[in-house]
Amino acid sequence: FIILKSLDTLKYGVRTGHPRFFNQLSSGLDVVGLAGEWLTSTANSNMFTYEVSPVFVLMEEVLLKKMQNIVGWLEDEGDGIFCPGGTISNLYSILLARYHFYPEVKTRGMGALPQLALFTSEHSHYSLKKSAAVLGLGTDNMVMVKCDERGKMISAELEAAIVSTKKKGLVPIYVNATAGTTVYGAFDPLNDIADICHRHSLWMHVDAAWGGGLLISDRHRMKLQGIERAWSVTWNPHKMMGVPLQCSAILVKKRGLLKECNELGAEYLFQKDKHYDVSYDTGDKSIQCGRHVDAFKFWLMWKAKGSEGFEAQINKCLENAEYLYDQLQRRTDFKLVFDSKPEHCTVCFWYTPPSLRCLPAGPEKEAKLHQLAPWIKARMMEKGSAMVGYQPLGGKVNFFRCVLSNPATQQEDIDFLLDQIVQLGQYL
Amino acid sequence: FIILKSLDTLKYGVRTGHPRFFNQLSSGLDVVGLAGEWLTSTANSNMFTYEVSPVFVLMEEVLLKKMQNIVGWLEDEGDGIFCPGGTISNLYSILLARYHFYPEVKTRGMGALPQLALFTSEHSHYSLKKSAAVLGLGTDNMVMVKCDERGKMISAELEAAIVSTKKKGLVPIYVNATAGTTVYGAFDPLNDIADICHRHSLWMHVDAAWGGGLLISDRHRMKLQGIERAWSVTWNPHKMMGVPLQCSAILVKKRGLLKECNELGAEYLFQKDKHYDVSYDTGDKSIQCGRHVDAFKFWLMWKAKGSEGFEAQINKCLENAEYLYDQLQRRTDFKLVFDSKPEHCTVCFWYTPPSLRCLPAGPEKEAKLHQLAPWIKARMMEKGSAMVGYQPLGGKVNFFRCVLSNPATQQEDIDFLLDQIVQLGQYL
Repeated sequence: FIILKSLDTLKYGVRTGHPRFFNQLSSGLDVVGLAGEWLTSTANSNMFTYEVSPVFVLMEEVLLKKMQNIVGWLEDEGDGIFCPGGTISNLYSILLARYHFYPEVKTRGMGALPQLALFTSEHSHYSLKKSAAVLGLGTDNMVMVKCDERGKMISAELEAAIVSTKKKGLVPIYVNATAGTTVYGAFDPLNDIADICHRHSLWMHVDAAWGGGLLISDRHRMKLQGIERAWSVTWNPHKMMGVPLQCSAILVKKRGLLKECNELGAEYLFQKDKHYDVSYDTGDKSIQCGRHVDAFKFWLMWKAKGSEGFEAQINKCLENAEYLYDQLQRRTDFKLVFDSKPEHCTVCFWYTPPSLRCLPAGPEKEAKLHQLAPWIKARMMEKGSAMVGYQPLGGKVNFFRCVLSNPATQQEDIDFLLDQIVQLGQYL
Repeated sequence: FIILKSLDTLKYGVRTGHPRFFNQLSSGLDVVGLAGEWLTSTANSNMFTYEVSPVFVLMEEVLLKKMQNIVGWLEDEGDGIFCPGGTISNLYSILLARYHFYPEVKTRGMGALPQLALFTSEHSHYSLKKSAAVLGLGTDNMVMVKCDERGKMISAELEAAIVSTKKKGLVPIYVNATAGTTVYGAFDPLNDIADICHRHSLWMHVDAAWGGGLLISDRHRMKLQGIERAWSVTWNPHKMMGVPLQCSAILVKKRGLLKECNELGAEYLFQKDKHYDVSYDTGDKSIQCGRHVDAFKFWLMWKAKGSEGFEAQINKCLENAEYLYDQLQRRTDFKLVFDSKPEHCTVCFWYTPPSLRCLPAGPEKEAKLHQLAPWIKARMMEKGSAMVGYQPLGGKVNFFRCVLSNPATQQEDIDFLLDQIVQLGQYL
């Protein structure tokens, strides 16, 4: 009975691993990763101390070190921890920046601090604002810096914002640069931003939750040039590397800061008189107490496919994005939201059905186009043929955002998606 | 090769499901729960929206409603969300209390607020202090209220602390009462605390991460009398109910507050023009974006064993604790840390080996006793025979804290533990 119920659950669920699931940044289903997750749940363990999770704690350290090396930090730099998702990883980065400049905040709270200002681009992920709210900094103090047409932060705008914020009496402490924005897949100019952070002595964070995977690829890693200058980095292997959910890391350049910022030394857990080197008890670096084991599946996948395997996967996803881009350029019934080769695995576009093609440009056409994407998506979901996201942005009406992060997706799946949109659109 | 590596990982890991694993509040390995976790990882889904996780989102709502009913809230009250662990659940409670009294904090930050004060007992979990640090309230403003010998908050001390904090110019907003403390397993007097919170208009949170399971048992639920008066409750089914890690809920009495406090309405995820009732998109209530599916295994276990099954499990664990208590009282070489029947599944005690028995009470004996528990634990771990925690507390030297939350534990396992301690202790 229970087994039947369970299978029903999968039947009525959404098949996020399907090659025609283009809806979310995380997709695919890696069998080795899945085996890792099954073993993790069989171990039913917890990351707080080395004594409870000796193997997993060591694996986490190995993986974090490997990721720090790939980011490009020096041998004596680097620290980190796996977190329940990229939003919490980004939250850590602000928490650490605040503690770095004002360690008294831990005991005395924000009341002891001047009014702080943080900077991120208007195309960055909403977790930055959310974290500012949670940490008591306030969303108003997260300054949204303008982007260019392509969704990249304009560095001159960043510097102007810093200067004008200072004039208002606020104290800037933190800049988030995004490597792979959520919608356009854009990469902020990291070196320019690093220069500005250096000039104003600000904490530079890179949110590479979505773009971090590209560091593994020789062909694409130059898009993240300058990331080695960041003070902290968010990188979600559960996105571009296909690790099963959840697997996100916050990497921190300054060693020891995570522990200082978060440790409380609870005596029932972090006894100092244990019979082993208690520096392995990394749990007090966390803002959590118990913590899910997210490292093992990732470790296992890396062992199984090597960096080359990840690289091949990532390159293939980007080739798929380029293929979609080429198709969209070729077909007159589709229009790209911005007309340049995709830097990452998201492609944004409108479809104009026959019924709208002769309509003159203007508010009426825009309004109809706005309703089209949700309508087509709904029909697709009813048929169960494919799944793709849509959204408005700024002044732009609803467009499709197609994510190509599943290495199982083939070119025919992409053709299928476009044909499906055309087929459904003709009934309008 | 990969399979072999994986099995090695289990071999060198700690068997947290073993009936002689007495080390942590979460233990045991429920096969139905494990099957649920395996299916969850196969679905590889994410809790942000109904469109991506239709079944899991509905299951989460059903479970949260069930838990709210058990807490005792009215039909039109109650909200909640599953979180990555009890610490994050407790963090939510403070976040919500702050927002409830000062909604402007979301946009303007703590700078716009007076200096706030929070209250919890000195025996409460360290996550309360940690959350105060993270949220920017400061650990100094988390006032630690005195407890009695048994580890229960003294309500008169709470009221005195509130009054004196007000005199200092701080604004009290929040009291945490613990239902099942981490070390002693004590239950704070919830009704007395609720009266005080009512008098001073404070948010009352109950941290029932560890004790919440007892609500399912007719025999034990009176220990949490008054919990229905709380404004929020943390309850971890992964502790006393044996659900595989992780499974923790924050329950909130006031409906809609979670969403108001945390929502940002990101347009790429929470489109308003979807083809279904978007009130099912509960993801924006969270401080996370992506969120692990923690509901399914719990739902499956509840279907499989019913409330009666959970009740029988919990009653058995408490009987085991009473059995250990009886044995310790009977044996002259053991001494209880406090001499009253355990209210929950932790029992704290010292062992005095033959070599120390004739030593007069005093600093020398205390010092030797302090070293004993870590030494015995280390030997036990080397042998792999059992695992039990220890710690000092206040002026008390290291004592053993034995946790009996695994329903697979039998009385002979408890006898084994005590015999093992005696056997290892004789070599000293």
